[in-house]
Amino acid sequence: MQILDGQLVSKTIKDSLKLDVAALVVEGKRPPHLAAILVGNNGASETYVGAKVKACSEIGFKSTLIRMEDSVTENKLLSVIGDLNTDPDVDGILVQLPLPKHISDEHVIMAIDPSKDVDGFHPVNAGKLVMGSPAFVSATPHGIMLLLEHYKIETKGKQAAVIGRSNIVGRPMSILLSANTNYGNSTVTLCHSHTHNLKEICLRSDIIVAALGRPGFVTGDMVKPGAVIIDVGITRVPDASKKSGFALKGDVDFPAVSPKCSYITPVPGGVGPMTIAALMKNTFTACQNNL
Amino acid sequence: MQILDGQLVSKTIKDSLKLDVAALVVEGKRPPHLAAILVGNNGASETYVGAKVKACSEIGFKSTLIRMEDSVTENKLLSVIGDLNTDPDVDGILVQLPLPKHISDEHVIMAIDPSKDVDGFHPVNAGKLVMGSPAFVSATPHGIMLLLEHYKIETKGKQAAVIGRSNIVGRPMSILLSANTNYGNSTVTLCHSHTHNLKEICLRSDIIVAALGRPGFVTGDMVKPGAVIIDVGITRVPDASKKSGFALKGDVDFPAVSPKCSYITPVPGGVGPMTIAALMKNTFTACQNNL
Repeated sequence: MQILDGQLVSKTIKDSLKLDVAALVVEGKRPPHLAAILVGNNGASETYVGAKVKACSEIGFKSTLIRMEDSVTENKLLSVIGDLNTDPDVDGILVQLPLPKHISDEHVIMAIDPSKDVDGFHPVNAGKLVMGSPAFVSATPHGIMLLLEHYKIETKGKQAAVIGRSNIVGRPMSILLSANTNYGNSTVTLCHSHTHNLKEICLRSDIIVAALGRPGFVTGDMVKPGAVIIDVGITRVPDASKKSGFALKGDVDFPAVSPKCSYITPVPGGVGPMTIAALMKNTFTACQNNL
Repeated sequence: MQILDGQLVSKTIKDSLKLDVAALVVEGKRPPHLAAILVGNNGASETYVGAKVKACSEIGFKSTLIRMEDSVTENKLLSVIGDLNTDPDVDGILVQLPLPKHISDEHVIMAIDPSKDVDGFHPVNAGKLVMGSPAFVSATPHGIMLLLEHYKIETKGKQAAVIGRSNIVGRPMSILLSANTNYGNSTVTLCHSHTHNLKEICLRSDIIVAALGRPGFVTGDMVKPGAVIIDVGITRVPDASKKSGFALKGDVDFPAVSPKCSYITPVPGGVGPMTIAALMKNTFTACQNNL
């Protein structure tokens, strides 16, 4: 069994981007600029946005963090996005989800200029993904693809189970793995809450992507020897032994599954850092298109 | 075994639209207007466009057929689309595919205003489909969903195999069947040219959608008793016994498969007429949004 080390691969990608940024600056161009909007004080959101801003600074990207109160109106948020859309100095815009209940995720996502939508959530980008056109791919699935690529994991002709059909992970992951591309061409079964025979489907899968957000859901008896396991889950569970009072748990029962599989992503340190690397890559691409 | 009679269901849908159009006209509004562009003289394309124009006239829609020479430039075609986009009298625009090789399908599709894209090919519509937002769904998958709905075929929790991953049929079909909607919620395996164990996948499927364009590809030994079979294929094969010199063949070996299954679409008379019914429904919706 080999660990798919997201921390390491993410660092490799960020190091390479750092050189790319330095080359831009040598050419007299400005570095890429990511604008992140954080509404309210959700602890996990603070952590995620903090990590993204930190990654920008490590690579040499400019970043702007715009904080807004929980009580901000949707109109105010949309108007700030409008300003970022027209600001030629901004390449990428991300709005950290979840948003307060009085704000529509969909309105916000639709308001972002698709050419600055480095999270890949806008329907134009989702649609281009379906059509196989160049697009900003949602950061988590994009990060997983970069991880598969780094470790040269054969996907062509393999059977894959994707568990969870969210717009931002499961659904695009199922599309990427089944597309006619390198590190695609798997035969993908998309599983969800109405799937009856999940264990059976997993047991015949060469690749399992667990993205449902239920800690320890994929157990040892669901995995075929030699399978590749991608764990997208990252749930905070109470843990008195930790200073923070919680531990991060994936959707896979790591102690039981890891001895059986060929490759596995740990949580934390697997998909999470790759998501950030993918976001940075998308922002660099947006900047190149913009300049 | 019951035939899924696309001819009959299409007629039912068109009859209902006819009443809706009459109601519009009573309200003093204009009827829906579909503009179709046909480039060159491909025989199958002539037939398809002819059937669409005929359906418009049966229902009481206005239709405009714009014919262009095979030699038309891409720019000229794009400019005609631009005019239709801004024409307030036009609700729906379709460009019959395939186009001559010197014209990019993608440029043409991207040029159509998504709100008039009744074929559902524009990435905005494909993306909204992925995201579960209201969208124009590509006419063939939309027609299949209408057929499943008409016959009240249970899809929730069923295993489905979709064979073929084209942008306009297989891929959107896999999304619709697995979405969290009525007549969705199936566990879908999307199969394609790199799928190794297709027979095995088909044999365990409750629903098979064949959309690869290879006549008679799905044989009797690939189908589990009681399965629901949707045949999207429609290939012209030489047939000296026909006046036209060809017969239309589906992707399913009908004589061998039909005795085993619970429901099956014939070719012709199954999915084909439903595609037209779905296009008409999309055009009516576009008109309602437009008025």
